[in-house]
Amino acid sequence: MKIIAFYQTKFGELWEKSLTSLIKEAIFGVLKEANLEIDQVDAIFFSNMMAGVLENNLHTSSKISEIIGKNIPIFRVEAACASGGIAFHLATKYLSDNSKKTVLIVGAEKMTDYSPEETTLALAAAASGEEQEAGLTFPGLYALMANFYLQKYHYSEENLAYVSFKNHFHGSLNPKAHFQNKLTIEKILKSPYVAYPLKVLDSSPISDGAAALILTNDAYLIKKSKYSVSVLASEVATDTINLFQRQTFDEILATKIASELAFKKAKIERKHIKVAEVHDCFSIAEILAMEDLGFWKKGEGGKNIKELSTQIGGSDLTVNPSGGLKASGHPVGATGVKQIGEIFLQLTKQAGQRQVKNAKYGLAHNVGGSGGTVVVTILGS
Amino acid sequence: MKIIAFYQTKFGELWEKSLTSLIKEAIFGVLKEANLEIDQVDAIFFSNMMAGVLENNLHTSSKISEIIGKNIPIFRVEAACASGGIAFHLATKYLSDNSKKTVLIVGAEKMTDYSPEETTLALAAAASGEEQEAGLTFPGLYALMANFYLQKYHYSEENLAYVSFKNHFHGSLNPKAHFQNKLTIEKILKSPYVAYPLKVLDSSPISDGAAALILTNDAYLIKKSKYSVSVLASEVATDTINLFQRQTFDEILATKIASELAFKKAKIERKHIKVAEVHDCFSIAEILAMEDLGFWKKGEGGKNIKELSTQIGGSDLTVNPSGGLKASGHPVGATGVKQIGEIFLQLTKQAGQRQVKNAKYGLAHNVGGSGGTVVVTILGS
Repeated sequence: MKIIAFYQTKFGELWEKSLTSLIKEAIFGVLKEANLEIDQVDAIFFSNMMAGVLENNLHTSSKISEIIGKNIPIFRVEAACASGGIAFHLATKYLSDNSKKTVLIVGAEKMTDYSPEETTLALAAAASGEEQEAGLTFPGLYALMANFYLQKYHYSEENLAYVSFKNHFHGSLNPKAHFQNKLTIEKILKSPYVAYPLKVLDSSPISDGAAALILTNDAYLIKKSKYSVSVLASEVATDTINLFQRQTFDEILATKIASELAFKKAKIERKHIKVAEVHDCFSIAEILAMEDLGFWKKGEGGKNIKELSTQIGGSDLTVNPSGGLKASGHPVGATGVKQIGEIFLQLTKQAGQRQVKNAKYGLAHNVGGSGGTVVVTILGS
Repeated sequence: MKIIAFYQTKFGELWEKSLTSLIKEAIFGVLKEANLEIDQVDAIFFSNMMAGVLENNLHTSSKISEIIGKNIPIFRVEAACASGGIAFHLATKYLSDNSKKTVLIVGAEKMTDYSPEETTLALAAAASGEEQEAGLTFPGLYALMANFYLQKYHYSEENLAYVSFKNHFHGSLNPKAHFQNKLTIEKILKSPYVAYPLKVLDSSPISDGAAALILTNDAYLIKKSKYSVSVLASEVATDTINLFQRQTFDEILATKIASELAFKKAKIERKHIKVAEVHDCFSIAEILAMEDLGFWKKGEGGKNIKELSTQIGGSDLTVNPSGGLKASGHPVGATGVKQIGEIFLQLTKQAGQRQVKNAKYGLAHNVGGSGGTVVVTILGS
């Protein structure tokens, strides 16, 4: 089972584009990348979170059938911000009978046509009813984790700031990124609070965008394809929706479970991973992810991030070369697909200015909500 | 791959039950039916259409993880009124690697806590933006098909009425049905119009409810299970969302495509099917379904339905013994799961008063929206 192509629209505030036009651009963009016709696609997996809530737009399987003019199976999957990773996971299961089939995975989200209040409320649909009633938004939920982590391990907001610093540097090298500006630590620390201790510049933006992949079992297609990357593992874990049901706030248990399963399945070790896209919806999330994925010891992330070893050219594996959710943008349904696509680009040496050297294996880590759903994908060149 | 258990909550106006409580009842209900513990389930597929729009409730994978207290993979699927059939289809794909796994499929919908206007608007999310802007609701879309069909083949509203007459008779035999009252043709014809020529009593109701199935590859579980039924085919087709893009209004093309694929896969003929659950969201829909599935010739459905040969005890295959969507109720996300469950009950002779005799093969037909997504499932005992 190989990924043979990836396409991403520009991420950002795309006011002139509708959800339909984003989906269309991504589908025909990835077909062109793969040098395929739509007739060669056996099924489509589509990930989107909020079109139902924001624009009363559901039943997208049929809407995509109209866009492509075909009657093939099309599936819409939703798992909040992990929708893209879940769509990819189910696509791998769809091909697990080893039939000679080809599937297209497309994720898209249109978020900026609404007021920030409307979009924030719609995003809160990924939290529990109790949390929504308590007025907890996602910055609030991650702020609880950040406060707990900083206090327990004696770090300050400055430690968090290095996540955004690094990811904006990476974003400055990515022409598809929502933000392509570098930030200083001072500027991050002076940005206004969203939910203490998290500031605007600790937080991923509200973005529009779409991303698509082609995954195939067809040996002939793989052979004639210019690029191909193997899917070594795609593993999913879930956890309680309510933070108050969790054992502790300084870890995302579902990340630990999914990554253990994924490394076992892929039969490689952490040290073999040279490039990773991890789910940095807030700065604290990248630090927890690096620890829970097993790259860093629990509690050491706050120190490690300051060394910038995970920045391109650093001594360690490179993390979020795309700019992550923070700088690359976070069009929710597209994010998990884009993460896997970025690893595909890195392993096939198509990442341009942000190319990581000598990466044979890469990992993508996609999180839904405050950690209730996690997908870990490992690719190998 | 075998279905070994089915559970259905009562369908109806369940004002004392939340979406969460319906899901919980269905999950633990089907586990009890199968004599399984939750630890024996490897993954869950969940189908729901409208919780996002109606109650800002998404990311149900995590919410179900909290209900069951487990970290297993859970997937939420949405395809409007075909959500349940699609969830089942993806569950069969999940098991297609022939691993010794067991999956639970659960569908649920909570529709009656809102005004009929709110629920009708949320249901319209399954239609296109153009149709929504034109003020077309689902009764309106199916009324266009009904008018076209009645005029083309010279039938009257009386022909349509026999669908509801039959399905309410079946519903009177089903203790889980939303409506258990018999209707007369006169009463149906005198009921108020919703969208000419469709009347209230041509239309399926707004219902609450949940349904669940256990599907397994585990030979040991199948062997010790009291009941088991084989999945001979599960096929999906899609079509344009907009009616104005279709070639004609007197057929659902996706039904024709999916049923051709399904019969080919199952390697049986139409005549072998003795019991079917077809998607009768409106009376006209059952007539079109019977023709498009290949049971009746195009244009003859209006005449055939009046002979009541598809009523329990009739001369033909029995259609919608559960009462169909019309009498059994239509909690959208649960419907496709319930249809397959009803066929399971019929083939394992657990259908009580509404038991169809000598049925070895059965079919379930689940439609999203005005025919943009169709799933056809064939089971064999």
